[in-house]
Amino acid sequence: MTTASNAGTILDAALLAQDLPEFVNDSSRAAALRSLEQALAGHADSLVALAADETGLGIERLTGELVRTRFQLLLFADMIADGGHRRPVVDAADPAYPPAPRPDLRRELEPRGPVLNFAASNFPFAFSVLGGDSVAALAAGCSVIVKTSPGHPELSARVAHLAQDVFASLGLSSQTIQIVDDEQVARDVLQEPRLKVATFTGSTSAGSALARIAATRPAPIPFYGELGSINPVVVTPNAAHAQATELAKGLVGSVSGSAGQFCTKPGVVFVPDNADHFVNTAIEHFEDVPKHRMLSPRIGEGYLRHRDQICDTDGVRVLAADDASRKGLNLWVTPTLAETTLDRVLDDPTLVRTEVFGPFCLFVRYRTLVQLVDAFPKLFIGNLTSTIRHTAIDLDEVETLDHIRALLSACAATSGRVLLDGWPTGVSVTAAMQHGGPWPSSTDASTTSVGPNAINRFLRPVTYQSAPDVLLPEGLRKTV
Amino acid sequence: MTTASNAGTILDAALLAQDLPEFVNDSSRAAALRSLEQALAGHADSLVALAADETGLGIERLTGELVRTRFQLLLFADMIADGGHRRPVVDAADPAYPPAPRPDLRRELEPRGPVLNFAASNFPFAFSVLGGDSVAALAAGCSVIVKTSPGHPELSARVAHLAQDVFASLGLSSQTIQIVDDEQVARDVLQEPRLKVATFTGSTSAGSALARIAATRPAPIPFYGELGSINPVVVTPNAAHAQATELAKGLVGSVSGSAGQFCTKPGVVFVPDNADHFVNTAIEHFEDVPKHRMLSPRIGEGYLRHRDQICDTDGVRVLAADDASRKGLNLWVTPTLAETTLDRVLDDPTLVRTEVFGPFCLFVRYRTLVQLVDAFPKLFIGNLTSTIRHTAIDLDEVETLDHIRALLSACAATSGRVLLDGWPTGVSVTAAMQHGGPWPSSTDASTTSVGPNAINRFLRPVTYQSAPDVLLPEGLRKTV
Repeated sequence: MTTASNAGTILDAALLAQDLPEFVNDSSRAAALRSLEQALAGHADSLVALAADETGLGIERLTGELVRTRFQLLLFADMIADGGHRRPVVDAADPAYPPAPRPDLRRELEPRGPVLNFAASNFPFAFSVLGGDSVAALAAGCSVIVKTSPGHPELSARVAHLAQDVFASLGLSSQTIQIVDDEQVARDVLQEPRLKVATFTGSTSAGSALARIAATRPAPIPFYGELGSINPVVVTPNAAHAQATELAKGLVGSVSGSAGQFCTKPGVVFVPDNADHFVNTAIEHFEDVPKHRMLSPRIGEGYLRHRDQICDTDGVRVLAADDASRKGLNLWVTPTLAETTLDRVLDDPTLVRTEVFGPFCLFVRYRTLVQLVDAFPKLFIGNLTSTIRHTAIDLDEVETLDHIRALLSACAATSGRVLLDGWPTGVSVTAAMQHGGPWPSSTDASTTSVGPNAINRFLRPVTYQSAPDVLLPEGLRKTV
Repeated sequence: MTTASNAGTILDAALLAQDLPEFVNDSSRAAALRSLEQALAGHADSLVALAADETGLGIERLTGELVRTRFQLLLFADMIADGGHRRPVVDAADPAYPPAPRPDLRRELEPRGPVLNFAASNFPFAFSVLGGDSVAALAAGCSVIVKTSPGHPELSARVAHLAQDVFASLGLSSQTIQIVDDEQVARDVLQEPRLKVATFTGSTSAGSALARIAATRPAPIPFYGELGSINPVVVTPNAAHAQATELAKGLVGSVSGSAGQFCTKPGVVFVPDNADHFVNTAIEHFEDVPKHRMLSPRIGEGYLRHRDQICDTDGVRVLAADDASRKGLNLWVTPTLAETTLDRVLDDPTLVRTEVFGPFCLFVRYRTLVQLVDAFPKLFIGNLTSTIRHTAIDLDEVETLDHIRALLSACAATSGRVLLDGWPTGVSVTAAMQHGGPWPSSTDASTTSVGPNAINRFLRPVTYQSAPDVLLPEGLRKTV
């Protein structure tokens, strides 16, 4: 069976798996990642069908997500095949080095050790059993224990079995990746002394609680959590006027795709007071969105609770109402659009700090960009993304350009990614991507959970001083 | 006055200082670091004299430390002058990018924000007011608040005044660096919402307590602590036999220099059973060391307490006894050498996990390398350094080489730096250096507090998506 119930046993297996020479070796580990990609490809249709059944996400979306997940496996395989991820640095001995003679020093990145990955509910492939966190950890040379999402247990077990079969067929340990379904067992693993890293994708409340456990164990370990994010969008007066239709359509797509269950869904949009055409167009598009299932009954309940909390606040007006219904336990929804004023959210910033995970968006009407420049830094602490939608004319007006620069600076100070066009959903898996912002959007804004740099969370530098070649790791030797 | 007592006021000043365009600009900030170096150089003699008086450290040692501190300022100035520390990554738009079209993405590292630096007692220059942590943070573009060490208050105030005068003379804010003497005020600053990073050099107990505050504040912040370390040394039977005199002499120098008050002082040495000549030579050298003052009465008391805790344990025998005395409040000591057996420390690993901060070393006698290979992973979790002293003959014997490789692997798994020659004290400030190991030696083994990479603790990536040149940071623009 794939699930174990004793943290000690799980770590025993994880360490045995991780120390196998075939897993330690970068090129054979790269080959294993490629075999995992092939296994996913070979079962794509049945995996997507199972995922659709368990999550309610669409076939097209899930097909694309599985392609992305396979791409991630190959990306990391390419990265590690020649040990490039170890980023060797060599400082030869230098008797004249200031301020004191320098011995021969050679540094590389090495795996930190077993990783516990709390999988996401909203990406059943790309952030689940063989998703980004797991694969980056495996690529680094760490064995992985996945706490599965309760939203797709059968898919999780199926993917884990596939992976375990691949590992076994290659002479690696089938326990190179293990899964845990039980919340308490996962917490036991999180506190096991031999566990070295934890990752998490989910809500701020759940992530914060687990991060505290990791930080207050007898030997604390790093906890890389990707938590909640509001992903504010600013629409300039010129943009609202000149691009009303395009912006309204794009926004609705970004808010309602997959029922808004994305960590980068735009939750708050700052809209100028005089942009009624944009607002009315947005309402029309919101009302055209068909019903979509929420990932799980629990997520559906959380969505309604947080949405209603905002909508029931004084000074908030619903512009496009939801048409929610249940089929069995599952909640099906259409998007909800509400609006309030900047003065109101300055009085009560929780209105723009409460993540509503689902197809909800709050318009915040502002009078002038100057007003917004002043307000923005008071409202936000940390987001994965912030977006400013402007026009070319904005850049030609000296004063407007200054305001946009000031806003941009406030966005950069509080976000991992700032967009000057497009919408924040749809995160490209590439080197220049930063997916992780200041708290509460992430627990460590210096790391990313998307793109090749995600591997760095599972590596730490080791320096070898005055070592003969025969004792040096391969990539650090003087003679090859 | 340089010290403030209100955390809010301190952060107000820190943010104002940090946002000044002349501080934000990389090349003018680099020039400021060079001016700080000149200021230290211009007052070298009086600073060293004051440091010697307050700390009891020798003039030669302090002179070298000040040279190193100036070197660090210039190293970081060179690094940031052209913005190289921002490590720009550009991914041009690519409609054919797998698995989905990629927008234009440009990433760079940006300053995290105000830093609180708990200064070290044992490096009054290199890890104090203008020491490595402060200078790396300033280089990153963060203003700095230093909690001064109670061991050298006048020196701290003097260096802070020098720095503040330099900043003011350059049109920067004198509050770019602020100092705090009071422990409670420092804790208030640590909890101030606008503080973004904390650094610490000191004991595991003090560091752990502060790390918990940082991790459990409403908005947690990273806490980069360099805590305690045992720095085990293994002497192979061949080395003990062939290099007895050289090893004994070098070891005593590393244990007793500056009264052993180094974070990389070798605290435990694994010595073969049949190495009496080496042991006797070491005893002779230990007994020849003259008295040295401990940094402060408090550190002296802690030293005696921890040393006696080890020496009073059953199965531990004192080989070279200390000749401690007091002059006024200050404790003066000669080194203490004790020994026990590997079997004994396997029964009670606290014997090799208790840092004795001062000139104390525990020899652990072992029978065979095989026994040590088996024991080592059971004894250590995290150290800044581990050292294996071997000979060329060891590398020619297949079986011995295997044992050394296994030991090396255990050392690398638990240390930031592994030495195959030399002694761990004397940390070179260079790119291939790693000063930071698994907990409890550091709070984050993926970072270093020595060398140019130390700057990364104060930076986080920000990605700009689809941004026109006029809105991009200078180093990310398409046209220069």
